[in-house]
Amino acid sequence: MNILGVDIGGTNVKLGIVTEKGAIIEHGLLPTPAGGPEAAAEKVAEWYGERRKNHGDARAAGIACAGLIDGERGFLYTSPNLPGWENAPLGRVFGHRLGIPVAVDNDVNCAVWGEYVMGAGRGTRHFVAITLGTGVGGGIVIDGRLYHGAQGLAGEIGHHVIIEGGPPCSCGGRGCLEAVIGSASITARAVETAGRTPGSRLSRSAGLTVRDIHEAALKGDAAAVETLAETGRLLGIGLANVVHILNPEVVAVGGGVAGAGDFILEPARKSMKEHLIGDILSAVRIVPAELGNMASFLGASMLALEKQ
Amino acid sequence: MNILGVDIGGTNVKLGIVTEKGAIIEHGLLPTPAGGPEAAAEKVAEWYGERRKNHGDARAAGIACAGLIDGERGFLYTSPNLPGWENAPLGRVFGHRLGIPVAVDNDVNCAVWGEYVMGAGRGTRHFVAITLGTGVGGGIVIDGRLYHGAQGLAGEIGHHVIIEGGPPCSCGGRGCLEAVIGSASITARAVETAGRTPGSRLSRSAGLTVRDIHEAALKGDAAAVETLAETGRLLGIGLANVVHILNPEVVAVGGGVAGAGDFILEPARKSMKEHLIGDILSAVRIVPAELGNMASFLGASMLALEKQ
Repeated sequence: MNILGVDIGGTNVKLGIVTEKGAIIEHGLLPTPAGGPEAAAEKVAEWYGERRKNHGDARAAGIACAGLIDGERGFLYTSPNLPGWENAPLGRVFGHRLGIPVAVDNDVNCAVWGEYVMGAGRGTRHFVAITLGTGVGGGIVIDGRLYHGAQGLAGEIGHHVIIEGGPPCSCGGRGCLEAVIGSASITARAVETAGRTPGSRLSRSAGLTVRDIHEAALKGDAAAVETLAETGRLLGIGLANVVHILNPEVVAVGGGVAGAGDFILEPARKSMKEHLIGDILSAVRIVPAELGNMASFLGASMLALEKQ
Repeated sequence: MNILGVDIGGTNVKLGIVTEKGAIIEHGLLPTPAGGPEAAAEKVAEWYGERRKNHGDARAAGIACAGLIDGERGFLYTSPNLPGWENAPLGRVFGHRLGIPVAVDNDVNCAVWGEYVMGAGRGTRHFVAITLGTGVGGGIVIDGRLYHGAQGLAGEIGHHVIIEGGPPCSCGGRGCLEAVIGSASITARAVETAGRTPGSRLSRSAGLTVRDIHEAALKGDAAAVETLAETGRLLGIGLANVVHILNPEVVAVGGGVAGAGDFILEPARKSMKEHLIGDILSAVRIVPAELGNMASFLGASMLALEKQ
């Protein structure tokens, strides 16, 4: 039997019918309705009701959602991108509407689980994934299970401090990993670096994106290459910290910023090794994530299967 | 049936006969023999052979040992405090000599397990312990099991970086937690602080210990109080980092330096909360470890019981 996969973001709901092996049979995109979880569950149930006619009943649904979520209880505390979504028992709300078993987790954990089951983490037992974008997120698989921690909030890798008293972070803290390698800090660093690099064609004003920096780096722009290398160096410190604490086999790096590939990953691997004690921990492999923006959607489906 | 507990340090081997509930029936102390694991196993077997006459066969032995150890395989990679102990299959060596099942882990992990089973971590599922001394160590219990990671090296909390490019660390890195709150950095900070604090009776020269600083703080010495508070503030950043990544229920703080109690722990709790995102993670409790220097010995015994 198939699974219904759903990925709820601030703008759109990505959803689809997926086989037990993770093949996508049909997928769609709905605007995220105003009206909170109830309204979203109704829209998803409508979509699913139509598809049941062709594809039959799904055995379960997996719901990925942006926000602070306790995956074990299927409970959403709060979501910065979904106004009005607060203290909501998402598992219960969607389960009631859909009439099938429902697994819920935050979108990052779902993406991590997707990578674990059918992406960069395949075949490991202890796996970490980090997503680089506006924010820096993370998730942890331990002994083949998604690790949630006491309140479902484990894996907040982006808010661990690597520079005490460093640059301010969106969380209110200072020197968090996100504060130094979130996309806003990368573009600010690029503008600053371009300003002192003769011949750099990087825009020295606002509006610059990490993709622009990557494209300039591909053309050999020295300021762009330096900016991404410094991002990688700082990421490498964060990776070393995670590896010292968790000693995973593989860390996958995904998210939009990771599109810059080895311009970031190579300096990150080098910096990580410089910060690790001993050679043994250096056996960890730092690899690109594989599932792109389908990771949450597919991971939610695979999580629903796992929880059955 | 009882258990044989053994804690191998650079100077002494602590060992004893322990009940399944962790009560100590008899214990002893042997000088750590030269001659590596084989010689140590022989001495331990001799001691055990004598005690068997009174207390009967032990059902298993738990061996705690200083050094880099893969607890799942019972394999010692290397031990800075035990010259010549390298690449040794401790589980096999001790099992062969003792003729009973043997569980092996490093002394910090054993102490963490002891705290989990019969100390500060009782009744939790997700637990972390940090030991403060010359070095800063740590161990992790996840879902009621000691977590080892891919190569048995998880929990190296002391070598995660909190100040990029900060003070040099014994590991060769810079700005590790150990570099800023290991006992050598605390005493150096005390000397520096006393130097600029009128009326401080703290020795401004070498030979000062953390215990001296604690005693001065108890008498109201401002430089001593400030030194321990700054230690706590930095520890709090490390705690926040661990809590962001692992979201445990309780973190226990032990080791000699933790003897300074709330002079360190109160500022640590405050600093940790300032560095945590949201109130939810702040539910974590930061408590003193309870088993003192018996933790490794008792924890090794309890680990042997668990692995049976």
